[in-house]
Amino acid sequence: MLFNYRVIVNILGILLILNAAFMLICIPISIIYVEGDLIALLMAALVTGAFGTTMFLTTRKTTNKELSKRDGYMVVTLGWLTMSFFGSLPYIFSGSIPGLTDAFFETISGFSTTGASILTDIESVHKGILFWRSLTQWIGGMGIIVLTVAILPILGIGGMQLFVAEAPGISPDKLQPRIKETAKRLWFIYLGITLAEFVLLFLGGMDLYDAANHALTTVSTGGFSTKNASIAFYDSPFIHYVITFFMFLGGTNFTMTYFALHGQFGKVFNNEEFKFYLGTCLVAAISVAAVLFGLGIEDAETSLRAALFQVVSIVTTTGFITEDYTGWTSFVTVLFFILMFIGASAGSTSGGVKVVRHIILIKNSVLELKRQLHPNAVIPVRFNGKALSRDITFNILAFIMIYIFIFAAGSIVMSILGLDFDTAMGSVAACLGNIGPGIGNVGPVDNFSAIPDEGKWILAFMMLLGRLELFTVLMLFTPYFYKSN
Amino acid sequence: MLFNYRVIVNILGILLILNAAFMLICIPISIIYVEGDLIALLMAALVTGAFGTTMFLTTRKTTNKELSKRDGYMVVTLGWLTMSFFGSLPYIFSGSIPGLTDAFFETISGFSTTGASILTDIESVHKGILFWRSLTQWIGGMGIIVLTVAILPILGIGGMQLFVAEAPGISPDKLQPRIKETAKRLWFIYLGITLAEFVLLFLGGMDLYDAANHALTTVSTGGFSTKNASIAFYDSPFIHYVITFFMFLGGTNFTMTYFALHGQFGKVFNNEEFKFYLGTCLVAAISVAAVLFGLGIEDAETSLRAALFQVVSIVTTTGFITEDYTGWTSFVTVLFFILMFIGASAGSTSGGVKVVRHIILIKNSVLELKRQLHPNAVIPVRFNGKALSRDITFNILAFIMIYIFIFAAGSIVMSILGLDFDTAMGSVAACLGNIGPGIGNVGPVDNFSAIPDEGKWILAFMMLLGRLELFTVLMLFTPYFYKSN
Repeated sequence: MLFNYRVIVNILGILLILNAAFMLICIPISIIYVEGDLIALLMAALVTGAFGTTMFLTTRKTTNKELSKRDGYMVVTLGWLTMSFFGSLPYIFSGSIPGLTDAFFETISGFSTTGASILTDIESVHKGILFWRSLTQWIGGMGIIVLTVAILPILGIGGMQLFVAEAPGISPDKLQPRIKETAKRLWFIYLGITLAEFVLLFLGGMDLYDAANHALTTVSTGGFSTKNASIAFYDSPFIHYVITFFMFLGGTNFTMTYFALHGQFGKVFNNEEFKFYLGTCLVAAISVAAVLFGLGIEDAETSLRAALFQVVSIVTTTGFITEDYTGWTSFVTVLFFILMFIGASAGSTSGGVKVVRHIILIKNSVLELKRQLHPNAVIPVRFNGKALSRDITFNILAFIMIYIFIFAAGSIVMSILGLDFDTAMGSVAACLGNIGPGIGNVGPVDNFSAIPDEGKWILAFMMLLGRLELFTVLMLFTPYFYKSN
Repeated sequence: MLFNYRVIVNILGILLILNAAFMLICIPISIIYVEGDLIALLMAALVTGAFGTTMFLTTRKTTNKELSKRDGYMVVTLGWLTMSFFGSLPYIFSGSIPGLTDAFFETISGFSTTGASILTDIESVHKGILFWRSLTQWIGGMGIIVLTVAILPILGIGGMQLFVAEAPGISPDKLQPRIKETAKRLWFIYLGITLAEFVLLFLGGMDLYDAANHALTTVSTGGFSTKNASIAFYDSPFIHYVITFFMFLGGTNFTMTYFALHGQFGKVFNNEEFKFYLGTCLVAAISVAAVLFGLGIEDAETSLRAALFQVVSIVTTTGFITEDYTGWTSFVTVLFFILMFIGASAGSTSGGVKVVRHIILIKNSVLELKRQLHPNAVIPVRFNGKALSRDITFNILAFIMIYIFIFAAGSIVMSILGLDFDTAMGSVAACLGNIGPGIGNVGPVDNFSAIPDEGKWILAFMMLLGRLELFTVLMLFTPYFYKSN
């Protein structure tokens, strides 16, 4: 047997049980606000829990508990898909998003921490359901942490090994025994950051409900808001700065945050990825601030704040909005479009290509010129002081190329569906990069409701591909995957 | 001494003398049409010839005639630049393009076979000057053939070695002695194709002058026309088909044409690059034709003809126009934008990334998924039945990444200069890919005259970068280049 189906189904069962448990967390909110979404949430939790329990119980007894690499790919992709199908039940049962296409789109946009929404009037949705919507992003963020720290490196995906070597308590040679411990530590940080932001947002003037929702969707770099106008609803500079800071934190490698919390700032500021990530945000924000200030619309502080907020929101792939940046000269539009392909740090909750890959890409490109002059010399790429194996460099280049290829293919398909040039490319870039709002008709003041149904499924697939670092999903479409060695 | 300056200057001198000789070819045209450009052309030839002769004579005597790899890079880049500076003299002296910026832009657009033009009224330019404009593309095409067959493989640029192994009369181990012979053979083909097209266009109803001009700029995949409306000026289907065929031929590896002329069609149709090139053109053309036919504007034959013409024009990076394709639904715009990144065959006169690199990119991407499953297996990319060394594959990936990086950086810079989203990306894609007309305000019915001066210099640099396969030019900006080993 090529796949260990019993164990795969068993794990999916556990995931669904967890999913149901998270749905139950929304029940108190539903009870407090009495808006009529209680039954829908209960039913969704029941159905999800029942399926999960059945799957778990029927596959519990097995002699072979071993998971192969192939099973790993299967579990990750199917896990995200299953969660997203069952996660759309609250929307469907409550009638807030009636159709499966829209409900699934909104849910996978949550679990993939993308933040693209088909809701045209968010504020009319019941509070229990909206809380579930925010929770999907937070759960997605947790999933990603365990994925990048524990699973992807074993599967050997896109240079993620690089990151692991840095993770606290993990040495690449004896990875498995300590995975649980590391994941736990990082989850504690995740939870801590969420709570800290919740408190600060509340102090900044948000009510408890909105503070909780925005905290959940900031740290996960998701970007779902409870307000139609997103963060532009709040005119408090304090709130803008708090969210900017926590978006940045969400896009920081959680291992770096771990080091910082233990006072090891040297490790943080010597990390090439962190430096490049911080540098990119600052350089882009200052350029955009200069443009805004130059336009003479806003004063220096407002310009810098708005620029910082939007740049960090895009780079960390969060997708919160304080202003319609597509109106800020074409330079900003082009810059933001390109920033959509950067992504923040590996080992964070952000999506996209990730800074580490760009660093290796740039270094390798420069070194390739050197290799031309000295064809017989072995000139490896160095990252954080270590020479990288050619395998890893190769893998990273292949990752980026596939990313661009999928972007191009996706844009063509979206344009066939009738989207204009900007919207076709903007929607694919925003979904593949797990950002959320894009450019064109899916820009900051618009949403994805007008995209045709086929387009929504394609964009949902883009979100999944981007979230699971391409290879995990694509692997399932190769013939090799189904052939024994 | 790191560089052999005497020999470099000597070669540049020879190039200028050739340049002057080509200018003299325009003299008879000037004399026949008597439009007042005779003196300008004579002066330009004289100045160019005088500079060339001086450079040649003063550096002729040297004990060390050896050219190092470094000298090679220098000669190629400086050669194209020198030719373009002196090549702009006819425009300046005649007053048809008064400013240096515009004149240089038009000339490098010629020598790089790009075809982007700043002329708003081409038909008002004197015929002798216009003939020079067409000749620059034809000379550029000749230069590229010798570059790809003889020079780039020695410099080890971007996988060009792949092509050489296929060239007639060349075996990779004893390259140099036979370069001249191979170049000569390919030039004969180039000349033959030009003459054949000239005759066919004349038979199709063009006058001798227009037939000659369009033959010169088709085979070189340049795309300069003597008409403001480009090929749309001619409503003869025969002319459209002839030009489509010769654009396709111009974008075909000249070695394949050599084989075909010797009846070795098996070699041609077994060549992976040729198959992919032909397939891309056909699939894209049929899709576009279906769109056109579906719009109900034109009948089946007209739709297919227009689609074939525009697809082949873009893929081969020629840039001739029969219709304003940016009005053909956004699918066509997005498709054409992406086709701008394909390029035709290596060893042809076309620009862009080239099909061979895409094939290797795609194969390597698929194999990378296999490598993930079997991390210890050595899985090389195979091209035309041969396993490629990892060095070559690596080099090709680096090439494509640098290409995209330059495209992104260029787009940002152009947007800073005030160009809108589509125009910024469209102009850079069109110039870097040596295509000519782009998307947005530099689309098929527009030209580059409205681009600000700084933008013209940047786009001129893009043309040079694209034409010389990036590395050749970029090398000159690395510190390694100026350090002895």
